[in-house]
Amino acid sequence: MINEQLINPKSIAVIGGSNNIQKPGGKILHNLLDGNFKGELLVLNPKEKEVQGVKAYLNLDELPHCNLAIIAIAARFAIDTVDTLLRKGTKAFIIISAGFGEETEEGKEIEFKLADLIDTNGASLIGPNCIGVLNNNYSGVFTTPIPEISSEGADFVSSSGATAVFIMERAMLRGMRFNSVYSVGNAAQTGIEDVLEYWDENYEEGKSSKIKLMYIENINDPGKLLRHSKSLINKGCKIAAIKSGVSEAGSRAASSHTGAMASSDLAVRGLFRKAGIVYCSSREELIAAGSIFNYQELKGKNIAIITHAGGPAVMLTDAVSKKGLNVPEIKGEAADRLLQELYPGSSVKNPIDFLATGTAEQLGIIIDYVNNEFDEIDGMAVVFGSPGLFKVDEVYKVLNEKIKNSKKPIYPVLPSLINAADAVKQFQADGNINFPDEVMLGDALAEVWKQTHKPLPLEFDIPNLDKKAIREVIDNAEEGYIASAEIMKILDASGINRAQEKVVKTVDDAIVTASKYGYPLVMKVVGPVHKSDVGGVVLNVGNEETVIEEFNRMIRIQDTTGILIQPMLSGMELFAGTIAEDKFGHQVMAGLGGIFIEVLKDVQSGLAPLSLHEIKAMLKRLNGYKLLEGVRGQEGINIDKYIDVIQRLSVLVTIAPEIKEMDLNPLLGTKDNVIAVDARIRIEK
Amino acid sequence: MINEQLINPKSIAVIGGSNNIQKPGGKILHNLLDGNFKGELLVLNPKEKEVQGVKAYLNLDELPHCNLAIIAIAARFAIDTVDTLLRKGTKAFIIISAGFGEETEEGKEIEFKLADLIDTNGASLIGPNCIGVLNNNYSGVFTTPIPEISSEGADFVSSSGATAVFIMERAMLRGMRFNSVYSVGNAAQTGIEDVLEYWDENYEEGKSSKIKLMYIENINDPGKLLRHSKSLINKGCKIAAIKSGVSEAGSRAASSHTGAMASSDLAVRGLFRKAGIVYCSSREELIAAGSIFNYQELKGKNIAIITHAGGPAVMLTDAVSKKGLNVPEIKGEAADRLLQELYPGSSVKNPIDFLATGTAEQLGIIIDYVNNEFDEIDGMAVVFGSPGLFKVDEVYKVLNEKIKNSKKPIYPVLPSLINAADAVKQFQADGNINFPDEVMLGDALAEVWKQTHKPLPLEFDIPNLDKKAIREVIDNAEEGYIASAEIMKILDASGINRAQEKVVKTVDDAIVTASKYGYPLVMKVVGPVHKSDVGGVVLNVGNEETVIEEFNRMIRIQDTTGILIQPMLSGMELFAGTIAEDKFGHQVMAGLGGIFIEVLKDVQSGLAPLSLHEIKAMLKRLNGYKLLEGVRGQEGINIDKYIDVIQRLSVLVTIAPEIKEMDLNPLLGTKDNVIAVDARIRIEK
Repeated sequence: MINEQLINPKSIAVIGGSNNIQKPGGKILHNLLDGNFKGELLVLNPKEKEVQGVKAYLNLDELPHCNLAIIAIAARFAIDTVDTLLRKGTKAFIIISAGFGEETEEGKEIEFKLADLIDTNGASLIGPNCIGVLNNNYSGVFTTPIPEISSEGADFVSSSGATAVFIMERAMLRGMRFNSVYSVGNAAQTGIEDVLEYWDENYEEGKSSKIKLMYIENINDPGKLLRHSKSLINKGCKIAAIKSGVSEAGSRAASSHTGAMASSDLAVRGLFRKAGIVYCSSREELIAAGSIFNYQELKGKNIAIITHAGGPAVMLTDAVSKKGLNVPEIKGEAADRLLQELYPGSSVKNPIDFLATGTAEQLGIIIDYVNNEFDEIDGMAVVFGSPGLFKVDEVYKVLNEKIKNSKKPIYPVLPSLINAADAVKQFQADGNINFPDEVMLGDALAEVWKQTHKPLPLEFDIPNLDKKAIREVIDNAEEGYIASAEIMKILDASGINRAQEKVVKTVDDAIVTASKYGYPLVMKVVGPVHKSDVGGVVLNVGNEETVIEEFNRMIRIQDTTGILIQPMLSGMELFAGTIAEDKFGHQVMAGLGGIFIEVLKDVQSGLAPLSLHEIKAMLKRLNGYKLLEGVRGQEGINIDKYIDVIQRLSVLVTIAPEIKEMDLNPLLGTKDNVIAVDARIRIEK
Repeated sequence: MINEQLINPKSIAVIGGSNNIQKPGGKILHNLLDGNFKGELLVLNPKEKEVQGVKAYLNLDELPHCNLAIIAIAARFAIDTVDTLLRKGTKAFIIISAGFGEETEEGKEIEFKLADLIDTNGASLIGPNCIGVLNNNYSGVFTTPIPEISSEGADFVSSSGATAVFIMERAMLRGMRFNSVYSVGNAAQTGIEDVLEYWDENYEEGKSSKIKLMYIENINDPGKLLRHSKSLINKGCKIAAIKSGVSEAGSRAASSHTGAMASSDLAVRGLFRKAGIVYCSSREELIAAGSIFNYQELKGKNIAIITHAGGPAVMLTDAVSKKGLNVPEIKGEAADRLLQELYPGSSVKNPIDFLATGTAEQLGIIIDYVNNEFDEIDGMAVVFGSPGLFKVDEVYKVLNEKIKNSKKPIYPVLPSLINAADAVKQFQADGNINFPDEVMLGDALAEVWKQTHKPLPLEFDIPNLDKKAIREVIDNAEEGYIASAEIMKILDASGINRAQEKVVKTVDDAIVTASKYGYPLVMKVVGPVHKSDVGGVVLNVGNEETVIEEFNRMIRIQDTTGILIQPMLSGMELFAGTIAEDKFGHQVMAGLGGIFIEVLKDVQSGLAPLSLHEIKAMLKRLNGYKLLEGVRGQEGINIDKYIDVIQRLSVLVTIAPEIKEMDLNPLLGTKDNVIAVDARIRIEK
């Protein structure tokens, strides 16, 4: 939970503040003194009367009231300290000390007690085992560097303090600014999801930053993460995140780190996709996405690449083309006019190459043409370095001005971090972020495009399931795999078509049922265990004559109590299933059956409940999707019906979350219908 | 062609050397003066008697003999200048001027003439339109920065001068050194392949660098590239390369750049795989691969990750695990002992996390344990940054010492480029290269591992094909698709099993043939065009009685001249084919048939001729590979026979390169055999 005292404290006490700035308690005080904090600073130090020029108090009793206490003392003193401060009215705590749940069981106990104590008093806790909090009001971290704070910079929350530092260092060297930084550490009270909730609920258009970055080791409440991410994105924010610990080995590492339990990568990807969060796997990718967010939004897929050096332009073209953006050829009258403005040998085909001798003025002209004359182009990347012959300051000045006034987004690639180091620094000081590697830009741009340019329907029509009937079956069911009769009730109550079947006892009933189902049919004896062995299974029954003949034969087989009649179905084998992922809710999977699941692992998934749009997108990601549409003489299936089945499945598990696993395998798909031929349901209560 | 005068000139003349170091002719002279060059420097300048302190000559007649001429004057003067210098005995030229083939057709003409002139005189030419050459003997480039030259550094050749600069800048900031740099520009005489040839033919164990990096826009002679790459790799070298212009749009860019013709990405990847070259898509990837080459070779897949900060270790674990390397759990008695050496809360499970408070001494102990006690571990990555509290110089000193003396490779990830900037610089000055992003290291390490750790059989047993018979068919064939009879001759001469068939004219012959082939059979009329329409195709003929009956019926069908009898084959549909790729030779493709090619595009390829090992690796990369082995009750095929067919196909096209396209589709595979049922061959002469 985050409150006003944490965000904008009038007074801060550093508990364990010291003169030694090589220690966290000393460094954080140093940073507070260096930073923007305008309120009252207090220090508790059992030995000093003054620390770094700030009046220090020897014990808690003497210490005046403070809004926010930053605690930098050993874990074993934490509870008493917090207890006393709470009684003195402190409503916000940052505990930077380590030695809690990340180290020992006792530490974990202390964490629980602290969180409980602070919760009970309606106060806020960040940490323990974190680097602190940084915003426009105060620099409450014990680490350096302190980035430039700007409301146009990124809001950043990190599970890991050190990782937050490394990300900031790398990002700052590119010119990235921050609006706020939260390191939640062991997240005894306030986790990533809570920070996101705070950003969402306190979002003010025009005041709040629209850029959100996250480094996540543990998702405790996927639903909360999803809700607030979607809400922020609907308000116009962009979110990119790393969820580390996605591999088995990586999750072992995360467990030993902050006690994070790994969630499977598939579930995380599904969650991010549902929310519209850009999925990143490295600091570099996160920074690249955040840098793209810093610029105008790309509104279409067509990129112009403007350069004085062919190589990077070609590599960038390769990268974006491979990932689904376009670098369309530019031609026509306007292109011819532009070519006249450039030196002989230049090319405007796209990439627009204005040669090693190209000037700042020419760059300006090119950007104006792309903005005003090349309507088909949606955004530009400008690659401009220096071989070290002359200064490029003028070029970067023009680039900076054009970026500020462009109709279309301009992404700058300034590769010369030695030859043009000073000019790049100035360019960044003007508020720009540099992309030093063109392919990293291209990859990230394509990823951001893919994740942020799709409809994100928050609401969708939920198909009508018979909730009461479903709950009745579930409530009466035992744990484990449930019986066929119950499965059929659930399918029927869910509106999922299943193969019909009826047990008949008279030849007349057999004839009526057969004519109702239509031919061909399957007939099976009911009663005998080994039906085939006793001649009790007949496939492909084609007419009434055979029905009569076979009924009369089969009903005489020993132990037979009736004859089961089913339509003999054919069609494309499909699959749909769902599995409960701890905390994430249900993951719903779909794909073609047979070798497509077993050998090719061609399965896509999404988190329940799923909108029709999400399911359609899921199916389109299948390698075998074209087979559903029909290909080369092979008939496709009724995709809408397939989507409907998957959606019903995804809604069913929200009504009956006790369903831990459920398979519809196979479903048989034809041009007309998709019908469940076999199903399994496992219940856990 | 590269000669001694280019590599180690006793005298260098700068033609067009000037006092203005913002111009190439001025800057290159400046760099030569600044650099290692010990020989005689001359300048030709029509206006000055001395340039930058070097005696200048007003015209070519006055200019004394020089080994190497660096030409920085306008393209139109190039031929006369080179001609005169050749007559004066100059044997090496670097033409840095632009304005040749990359700009105009006339420029291209001049290039051809220059190359011809220089070739005829047995001299060497680098360029035109390049930044020059840089090695231990002289700094013959007009750009900055000049990297540290070391025989342990990388040999680097680039199609693009600017790209070479941007790569060097980025690499130098990481600590990378170079042994030589060649910018081949328009490659009028000397291309990438020639530089590679020079490296290969002049390789001296213990003296030559083992690290080769390439930025390639155009592969003119894939065979030469392959030959010398393989040879260098067999001598212990490591090679990584970018081939840009692999996308359609990218190739348009490359064309406008240095007139490069794009080769399809598939062919390039096949070539690199065959050679053992690490395929890179960006400057970052190339530098990461080159940095890995700088360290000891990884001998196995098991990595230990050593860190004081969990986050990056988790991300690195995720990255390498995803790409096929292992971060195995470390446990046992030695692990327990190591844990005792570390602070409470540390973990040695792998990642080995020795906490934010971990010391230099502890790092040394951990590395010693990994080297000496954890036999299963093949290499280490050490992630160590700084939150800015205290200096990490001691840690990096230990790391440097351990790297120099380690039995196993150690890859350093030092992320704090602000907090620990000076310490990182010192670490790099000690001869190390830093990986600032752990995931980029992980991705590159996995890629290098994959590409460099496989047998590379230079020679292999070539199956016995009837070359004479094949040539006879090819030599007598018209262009275009050839007739069925010729196809059969080629298949038979190649030793590729095909479906047997015989045209019979009498019922007795039909009976004999049928009993020879075995049942079931297919019978088709010969003569009528629309065989099916006239009832001239019978499938599944199961016995002699039917053979007789059908023969007697079919032979009476109008226009029928005989009856074709084939065994009716069944089996798994497979595919093999080959297509001639301009310059690259033949690309041979294989995969499962039907939807696997048409919908799933599950096809793998390699460049002909292929060793059995290469083909096996190709097939294993198929998504559907398990189907070849047999899966869940479905019988597999005789994979060895399939490999044999693919190899014969790959050898056939070396005997008959006129085969531009050839399909064996379908091949039918069973447990016993793989038989071509249909084949198409297109010939171009």
